[in-house]
Amino acid sequence: MSRYVYLNGTYIPANAAAMPLDDRGLLFGDAVYEVIHFRQNFYVDGEGHLARLDRSLAELSIERPYVSHQSLMIKLRYLQGLNAIKEGFVYIQISRGIAPRAHPFPEYALPSFFMTMSAKNYMAFSPQEICTAKDGRWHRCDIKTTNLLHNVLAKQDAAEKGLFDTWGVTDDGFITEGALSNAWMIKDGIVYTAPETCNILGGITRRRILQIAQGLQIKVQEKAFTLDALYAADEAFSSSTNAVVIPITKVDSKLIGTGRPGVLTEKLNNAYMKFVELGVSCG
Amino acid sequence: MSRYVYLNGTYIPANAAAMPLDDRGLLFGDAVYEVIHFRQNFYVDGEGHLARLDRSLAELSIERPYVSHQSLMIKLRYLQGLNAIKEGFVYIQISRGIAPRAHPFPEYALPSFFMTMSAKNYMAFSPQEICTAKDGRWHRCDIKTTNLLHNVLAKQDAAEKGLFDTWGVTDDGFITEGALSNAWMIKDGIVYTAPETCNILGGITRRRILQIAQGLQIKVQEKAFTLDALYAADEAFSSSTNAVVIPITKVDSKLIGTGRPGVLTEKLNNAYMKFVELGVSCG
Repeated sequence: MSRYVYLNGTYIPANAAAMPLDDRGLLFGDAVYEVIHFRQNFYVDGEGHLARLDRSLAELSIERPYVSHQSLMIKLRYLQGLNAIKEGFVYIQISRGIAPRAHPFPEYALPSFFMTMSAKNYMAFSPQEICTAKDGRWHRCDIKTTNLLHNVLAKQDAAEKGLFDTWGVTDDGFITEGALSNAWMIKDGIVYTAPETCNILGGITRRRILQIAQGLQIKVQEKAFTLDALYAADEAFSSSTNAVVIPITKVDSKLIGTGRPGVLTEKLNNAYMKFVELGVSCG
Repeated sequence: MSRYVYLNGTYIPANAAAMPLDDRGLLFGDAVYEVIHFRQNFYVDGEGHLARLDRSLAELSIERPYVSHQSLMIKLRYLQGLNAIKEGFVYIQISRGIAPRAHPFPEYALPSFFMTMSAKNYMAFSPQEICTAKDGRWHRCDIKTTNLLHNVLAKQDAAEKGLFDTWGVTDDGFITEGALSNAWMIKDGIVYTAPETCNILGGITRRRILQIAQGLQIKVQEKAFTLDALYAADEAFSSSTNAVVIPITKVDSKLIGTGRPGVLTEKLNNAYMKFVELGVSCG
């Protein structure tokens, strides 16, 4: 974690920052979050992430603790300066606030709001292997909440097998998404990813990739695909804020396509990285 | 919250207690909890609660931060003495610990362990009205974790309608449980409650009531019942650590039985309260 963090209006050393025990984020997972990558002055899709943060708060009727995106961006840049980080990630978490423990929303509570940073580059573009498992999460995966235990267990299960991730499968056999990424496959030149329903998180990187694909005149269908279709795909990849595009070359021990990163996957990744570099150079 | 709390081995004033921002309970809901009612020296079904705590920890591969139930009980009694509370509830929470944010289990992390108390009696035995709604929780409701956002929303939804609770219904039309209680119905002298599967939490109060019913030679079936069966029931009630037995006399605006607390419901509640009083007098 960065040396300095933001906590409820103050910038303080990380080792002095802590949350009261009756914060609802701690007791109930009654909190939402965002992660944004930054390079110098450029917050990659910052507006998209903050719009999603607004939506997560609204869906849970948590009051927005910032006046505007602009004021929040000023806080982010100030925190970045304090920590002297050129490239990294900011983690933003907002809970419903602090109140004596009781399930219903408290009558009087101000949101608990903190932000931490870490100096890190994107994960390298390299082929990865995944497994799949029943997606047993709750019914509002479209909200970016801290109720992440299923995701933790899915990622841990993959790690224990030496794999990159676990992709979720519905009872009907459709792929939902990874533990912290969206899932994609490519077949006969068409790129597929599940549509935005309550079953997946509307990834900001996912949306950017959809736009980039259109710009490159690559055919895209926002349509759920089955596990069997994935096994038979030409290419597959995952997308996330942390790792952008990661080629998935093996699923459940089965090779996908040639077993090497696909041409379209690489093309999309390159175009995404150009979008980031363009933002940095304009920033 | 009590004046003093227990936090990772120390007893400290509540206003001095706080959790570092990278506690996995705060970031991922990667934590389990228990609530136990106590009266004087008697911790009601203390052994049952601590056995369930062991199980929750084991299911999530979180290390047990106490050597034995006996040592934990000594901590509880000491905390109770510090707070000079005769009757109340203790809240126990244990997370996987503190580590830089990453989904998989951290290699090195000690569990974060805290306990708080509140001076409170059981909720009064009084007829209550509930509604029902789709149970959209995750697939491991048998583990008592802090991923409670669905429960929070269900309880809030009921509160906004002026109701006591929302009971969950599966896609197949079966009742699971309340937001923080087990669900029961009685028809033709037989008491029904859902069996212990991944769909419900194995309530400690629920188990005690099952035992008490057997002692009273009341017929019990651990068998899921449908919403339609509930509408047509003679009696219904909920059970929980906080409220023991609460008669449910109206469901989705429909009267259950006579619309007054049922005879068997009252009998079970009285027997439960006798069990508590006996424990207190022996303690």
